[in-house]
Amino acid sequence: MPELRKDPLLGRWVIIGTERVRRPADFRVPRPPRRGGPCALCAGHERESPPEVLVYRDKPTEDGWRVRVVPSKFPALRVEGDLERRGHGLYDLMNGIGAHEVVIESPRHDDALARMPVAAVEDVVRAWRDRIVDLKRDQRFRAIMVFKGHAAGDGAALEHPHSQLLATPIPPQGLNDELHHARAYHDYRERCLFCDIAHQEAEERTRIVEETEHVLAFAPFAARLPFETWILPLRHTPGFEHASAAELRDFARALRGVLRKLERALGDPPFEFLLHSAPFAESDSPYYHWHLEVTPRLPALADSERSSGFHVNPMPPEDAARFLRDTGN
Amino acid sequence: MPELRKDPLLGRWVIIGTERVRRPADFRVPRPPRRGGPCALCAGHERESPPEVLVYRDKPTEDGWRVRVVPSKFPALRVEGDLERRGHGLYDLMNGIGAHEVVIESPRHDDALARMPVAAVEDVVRAWRDRIVDLKRDQRFRAIMVFKGHAAGDGAALEHPHSQLLATPIPPQGLNDELHHARAYHDYRERCLFCDIAHQEAEERTRIVEETEHVLAFAPFAARLPFETWILPLRHTPGFEHASAAELRDFARALRGVLRKLERALGDPPFEFLLHSAPFAESDSPYYHWHLEVTPRLPALADSERSSGFHVNPMPPEDAARFLRDTGN
Repeated sequence: MPELRKDPLLGRWVIIGTERVRRPADFRVPRPPRRGGPCALCAGHERESPPEVLVYRDKPTEDGWRVRVVPSKFPALRVEGDLERRGHGLYDLMNGIGAHEVVIESPRHDDALARMPVAAVEDVVRAWRDRIVDLKRDQRFRAIMVFKGHAAGDGAALEHPHSQLLATPIPPQGLNDELHHARAYHDYRERCLFCDIAHQEAEERTRIVEETEHVLAFAPFAARLPFETWILPLRHTPGFEHASAAELRDFARALRGVLRKLERALGDPPFEFLLHSAPFAESDSPYYHWHLEVTPRLPALADSERSSGFHVNPMPPEDAARFLRDTGN
Repeated sequence: MPELRKDPLLGRWVIIGTERVRRPADFRVPRPPRRGGPCALCAGHERESPPEVLVYRDKPTEDGWRVRVVPSKFPALRVEGDLERRGHGLYDLMNGIGAHEVVIESPRHDDALARMPVAAVEDVVRAWRDRIVDLKRDQRFRAIMVFKGHAAGDGAALEHPHSQLLATPIPPQGLNDELHHARAYHDYRERCLFCDIAHQEAEERTRIVEETEHVLAFAPFAARLPFETWILPLRHTPGFEHASAAELRDFARALRGVLRKLERALGDPPFEFLLHSAPFAESDSPYYHWHLEVTPRLPALADSERSSGFHVNPMPPEDAARFLRDTGN
């Protein structure tokens, strides 16, 4: 009998298959052909990208960097201008103002977060934090999303390891939905929903993928997709920019560990991740709690399932978590 | 300058590129290889699928049918059993009870809604209506979604033209979100949001794709994807099952017309459609209004855009609608 499980953060029901016939091998992905480097994001090609807004260097030479952040060459939103919110009949619109930046995670074309030293992953997440702190000063922005779309193999995507930041004048819908449900939970229980999830997961243990002193990586109870994994800090902190140095280090370790396990279990699958951090107005929120959601995109799953309006996940998250726990880092 | 546009039904902001450099040819899709028929859904193979729950026949022979509806062989939800809603710590779940049916749209393997006579498409939408009326009697169900995922070309999908019905004990999140926003709009304006959208679109005309006596097909103001098209009846009707015969005929004509235009403009792209019909408890709702949303899945668009939490649509819906209007049926 399949189960309907409710995602407490989004109020969304997901259909979870419980036939328990699938193994990670059923989801293994053939690695797409790579064009290979060097590319405009590689060390030695710094002049092919816009001037950097942040750089961590080992040496005072142009190519002696560990992480660089540059404005996107193809920005989804533009940084210059005013918002000009306005109506159009019953519709609402505003200018597409925002900041869109590319975090170049390594000087080497063939690197990957899953295989870099933990200290290098720590540089990347520190760069996210530093850019958020800087962009937060711009009064036009209300939220910043950090995200990555890895190796969709569609030829259009940049191969060089990179993540992206998008600072926006309105929070994305998914963040608003989480805020709505977390607020309702807090109104009723006077506790943070995310803190309660961390407690229940740490106690039940069946969905845990990795656990460190400061963060928990686990398959969410109502996972939309096989091997979906969330990384959540144990200490209540609404905004990622307020994570401590020790938390960032642990978070980097857990992120690298999860991506490494996915790579070993599934063969470098395409995946996305999205950092969920409180909108700036909610930086002190008692009910919001930053976290990162990793979602592999496994081609064996017909996207058509989504067309019903329901996510249909053929693999119980307890099975996915066990497979990943059993996979070495 | 890109625009941020708000979808009034979902409260979701979409980033709309306004560079106006894209033409339909940029989105043309190579047609995936087909395995070809006959298959278990073809005329003459009736015994390879479960016994039918509905059939429209020309002749009293086993293979003399125009449309058949059968239970899914791989149901996402099971029809037998009780719901058993329960908690699990802070989480909520219930048994995966529901009905999952396959509407076989034609006896011929190589047919397509885009190329069938209007009368045959009318049979298909009448079959949806008849099945909804029947399934509505089951007290366990609260909503029915009718959907189609066409030719993702992933090898796993059924090629034979078919749509699917999923009757569920809870409405999908997208429907709840629409109800929420439509209710808020109605509370404030005392008018139906969908009726107002139809009026504004019929007046502005820039986003119209097809117009008949009873229905309007248009590109939505905050389209998530290039060539996204909605088909909306002009008369306020919450549930699809209450559409009149004349409305169903017009709806079939518009649906066929839109799919035909997409095929001609884009070369038989993969697409999904989802019929949005009021949950049963809202059958007399003054604020809900059934409609169908067609979303082509164009591979040129990196899914990675979605990973930011925002849909980024590079083509203004006004351009998409004009291209489709200029494309013959």
